[in-house]
Amino acid sequence: MSDILENLDPELVGRPDAPDFDASAAADVLHEALEKGGDDAVRDWFAHVQEADIADILAELELPSMARALSLLGLEERAEVVGHLPVSTQADYVASLERSEVARLLREMSADERADLFNALDTVEQDRLLPALAHAEREDIRRLSSYPEGTAGAVMTSEYASLPEGLTARQAVDELRRVAPDKETIYSAFILDDQRRVIGVVSLRDLIVAPPTALVVDLMESDVISARVEDTQESAAEKIARYDLIALPIINGGDKLVGILTADDAMDVAEAEATEDFHRAGGAIGNLGASVRDATIPRLYRMRVTWLVLLVFANIFSGAGIAAYEDTIAAHLTLLFFLPLLIASSGNAGAQASTLMVRAMATGDVQMRDWGRMLGREFLVAALLGVTMSAAIAGIGVWRGGVDVAQVVAVTMVIVVIVGSLIGMSLPFLLSRLKFDPATASGPLVTSIADVAGVLIYFGIAAAMLSPSVA
Amino acid sequence: MSDILENLDPELVGRPDAPDFDASAAADVLHEALEKGGDDAVRDWFAHVQEADIADILAELELPSMARALSLLGLEERAEVVGHLPVSTQADYVASLERSEVARLLREMSADERADLFNALDTVEQDRLLPALAHAEREDIRRLSSYPEGTAGAVMTSEYASLPEGLTARQAVDELRRVAPDKETIYSAFILDDQRRVIGVVSLRDLIVAPPTALVVDLMESDVISARVEDTQESAAEKIARYDLIALPIINGGDKLVGILTADDAMDVAEAEATEDFHRAGGAIGNLGASVRDATIPRLYRMRVTWLVLLVFANIFSGAGIAAYEDTIAAHLTLLFFLPLLIASSGNAGAQASTLMVRAMATGDVQMRDWGRMLGREFLVAALLGVTMSAAIAGIGVWRGGVDVAQVVAVTMVIVVIVGSLIGMSLPFLLSRLKFDPATASGPLVTSIADVAGVLIYFGIAAAMLSPSVA
Repeated sequence: MSDILENLDPELVGRPDAPDFDASAAADVLHEALEKGGDDAVRDWFAHVQEADIADILAELELPSMARALSLLGLEERAEVVGHLPVSTQADYVASLERSEVARLLREMSADERADLFNALDTVEQDRLLPALAHAEREDIRRLSSYPEGTAGAVMTSEYASLPEGLTARQAVDELRRVAPDKETIYSAFILDDQRRVIGVVSLRDLIVAPPTALVVDLMESDVISARVEDTQESAAEKIARYDLIALPIINGGDKLVGILTADDAMDVAEAEATEDFHRAGGAIGNLGASVRDATIPRLYRMRVTWLVLLVFANIFSGAGIAAYEDTIAAHLTLLFFLPLLIASSGNAGAQASTLMVRAMATGDVQMRDWGRMLGREFLVAALLGVTMSAAIAGIGVWRGGVDVAQVVAVTMVIVVIVGSLIGMSLPFLLSRLKFDPATASGPLVTSIADVAGVLIYFGIAAAMLSPSVA
Repeated sequence: MSDILENLDPELVGRPDAPDFDASAAADVLHEALEKGGDDAVRDWFAHVQEADIADILAELELPSMARALSLLGLEERAEVVGHLPVSTQADYVASLERSEVARLLREMSADERADLFNALDTVEQDRLLPALAHAEREDIRRLSSYPEGTAGAVMTSEYASLPEGLTARQAVDELRRVAPDKETIYSAFILDDQRRVIGVVSLRDLIVAPPTALVVDLMESDVISARVEDTQESAAEKIARYDLIALPIINGGDKLVGILTADDAMDVAEAEATEDFHRAGGAIGNLGASVRDATIPRLYRMRVTWLVLLVFANIFSGAGIAAYEDTIAAHLTLLFFLPLLIASSGNAGAQASTLMVRAMATGDVQMRDWGRMLGREFLVAALLGVTMSAAIAGIGVWRGGVDVAQVVAVTMVIVVIVGSLIGMSLPFLLSRLKFDPATASGPLVTSIADVAGVLIYFGIAAAMLSPSVA
């Protein structure tokens, strides 16, 4: 057995923060150690592993082993590890515990994670737990759960540090020391008036550096950046990044402080939003709800089927375009050789243009009013690209199609790259104007629209420039 | 004139943190106010605007107006505003100042921003400035500039707070108070041995909460998460997000502490990395170097031309595939109606699959060893999608092509969606194995490869299932 316990040495299992760390292999070692009664070894090992890493490893275990491993942790650390588990796993774990144990665990969790977990429980389980919770905790869960998903209110935590007006720096530090155990952060403290409106913000750094008798009102910054509960979580996270904040105050309709978004939660929000935009750009919509590794097959199917089916119908227009020119094609079958290349170029140029625009709109680099300016620049860039592409395929055009067809292909290439680019570049603006997420202008959507345009332009030009009889 | 000055009221120009804030309109008002000598009004206004917002507005002005506006700010605030400007604008501004003024400004800037600015200057300008800098500053710039772009070393700052072994909590707080003005953050302090190796980390919060006589070595966390100077900036930023750190220590080959990456810089890194992946996924490679709004036409051209031209040649294979089946096509021209729809479905399914995988690999959800497991799941999802798509177009198949062609189309659809998906899903793994960035498996690349496969599968099936004569 000693070899298994030795394997629990982080240097042997591999450091969990190393890029090639294998959580499921570590979980196997852990499982074996638990089976063989190596509780003390597991405890010693846990003491050297970060909570986020413990959670990753435990998530690979079956529920009984996971519960067993969690029971070896102290309450505080256990609450942290549980907070790092996927919410559905948290719910399964909690359902396996006795009511009083759950109540103790929930009390120890941070307010926002507690509310998320509570909401993931089924109503039977919620009803079982409610009587065990203190009134203040019930109220807190209710309040934090009352904001729609995706809003700043839904990701904030109520555990902010606040100070009344009129304290000195020393008094303020004493007050922050007193409340620290219950607060998400004490590095930013908000000074509230008697209506709980934010009249200033002060950093612990400034409080420490200032003379002890200095007044907080003289140290505080009174132009406070804040967000409203109904703002999107994305815009709130963006403010934290832009203004380098430790915590962003979230205020309600009555201008009262109701919570904060912390910098570490803002990073998670930014990552989740980037992932959603990324998926959307690839034509997969909706929230995965888990990592791609763990997502269910039906969920993955639903994310993808909508666009795929919609786009099939968009491509019927391309088919109809081809059918409309069947005579021209029959007379010049060699035109078909260039079809994939031309419509792909149109689609690719469009996908590039839309990608640049979608990301710029997401990061705030480009706004609605920039459309005109962007259009002019896009035209120039696309014209240069079109001419380059045209030159690149001129030789093949002559070789495969002769001079006549080569001319059609060369002219078509310039035009489809420009048209595809302008469509790709404009679509995000159009969608944004229509109150859709600009990221809906995904590669697949733009490609399909540009394809239709490409087919019509190509055969339109061919019909106009080539003789109708067989060459 | 009073109306212009009134326009400087932030409530009238619009709050800079509002989503519809127009920096260039605010710049016009500011320019007019400066022209008319409203220096005091500008100063009053600046006092209520965040540095990041002032920088956004000034970036819209010509250099002389910008320099004039900056001269109205105190040195400390000016250094902060300058640090928020695009680096090329910073370089232009600095070149317009006298040497002693630049030296004062550089001294006030944070170490990482100072090094970035210095490196953006041309060598003549660097040589002009060097003698005006203190030895320590020159050394610091040299050290911070010595790491390749994209590494943790290149984004770290040298202004970290460190503590010797053996202090009490009270002594530690006193020491942090003393060094605070020169440190990026004092909320995380690193305890170093006499070789400057990190033996622990302690938060200001813990120091404040602890009894004043407690020893720092008893309060500190000795399992310190760190990154090495040569690690990618992306992996360092990822650690900050994962472990909710305020600052990540960066150590060199000799295990000595040389800098920290702060949480706010990590957010910027994460955003830049997401943007780069996003662009890459859309087939635009390289660093934009500025916002899309301000990027030069040649830069935009270069980002896009490589993939566009490469993909044209990939699509020649599709053309050759079509040409190879010219007889089948001539005999059944109606097959062409379904061509765009089938190859688009193959390409779209591939783009979806690769997008999910690329993002999962970027966020660490999926690793190389997960390929086998992912392949099995992808096959299942793709088969379901293919059958759905096949059913969706069956009616049109019969209507446009008759039963024979409809059968070909239905069978082809199932196969191309599966093949496209498996290509899209596997390509990021293949690229990663070949040491390319998996994000290179962009939509356009996957779409082009899937298109070739789609053409060959379609006409291959058609040639096998349909009679060779005209229907």
